[in-house]
Amino acid sequence: MTIRHIVFWKLSAVTPRKKAVDAAGVASRLEALVGVVPEIRALTVGPDVAGDENWDMALIVDVDDLDALARYQAHPDHRAAGAFIRTVVTDRLAVDLAV
Amino acid sequence: MTIRHIVFWKLSAVTPRKKAVDAAGVASRLEALVGVVPEIRALTVGPDVAGDENWDMALIVDVDDLDALARYQAHPDHRAAGAFIRTVVTDRLAVDLAV
Repeated sequence: MTIRHIVFWKLSAVTPRKKAVDAAGVASRLEALVGVVPEIRALTVGPDVAGDENWDMALIVDVDDLDALARYQAHPDHRAAGAFIRTVVTDRLAVDLAV
Repeated sequence: MTIRHIVFWKLSAVTPRKKAVDAAGVASRLEALVGVVPEIRALTVGPDVAGDENWDMALIVDVDDLDALARYQAHPDHRAAGAFIRTVVTDRLAVDLAV
């Protein structure tokens, strides 16, 4: 079994330029966790490309199980990324799938 | 490039048993699209397994591009699945990633 941890964010930025800068900041900090946080089996993160009523960003992280997910979320580098993310988003939602 | 179409739902059911039945109904109808809707390159769907403030279900569908996503969404079988899904959910959110 694998836990696929999926997160949506709504960015607080209003202008497309600031939204792109903040999205890149979120993505680079999360991508930098690969190889640092040992629980990460796969990680995909990026901005929405369709618009309309879609939210602004999504992250998909695969970990071995819910314990591994907790260790991933407690990792200091993930906490640092999370601290930055909270400065540029207004909303966060998640779903965790067993795949 | 691939478009990763990700959808979250909140189910309207209150009891765990009805929620499980409805989640299975959503999942089976979407999984049945594989091999029927030619634009689908990969499809994963299922209930959340972590709880807390997570939403109830997520779908991840890979298609070739945004045009393929539109054809997937316009396919009669997808429309039929969508009609059922709207009867058992209260909220829907999506993000489409270019991966």
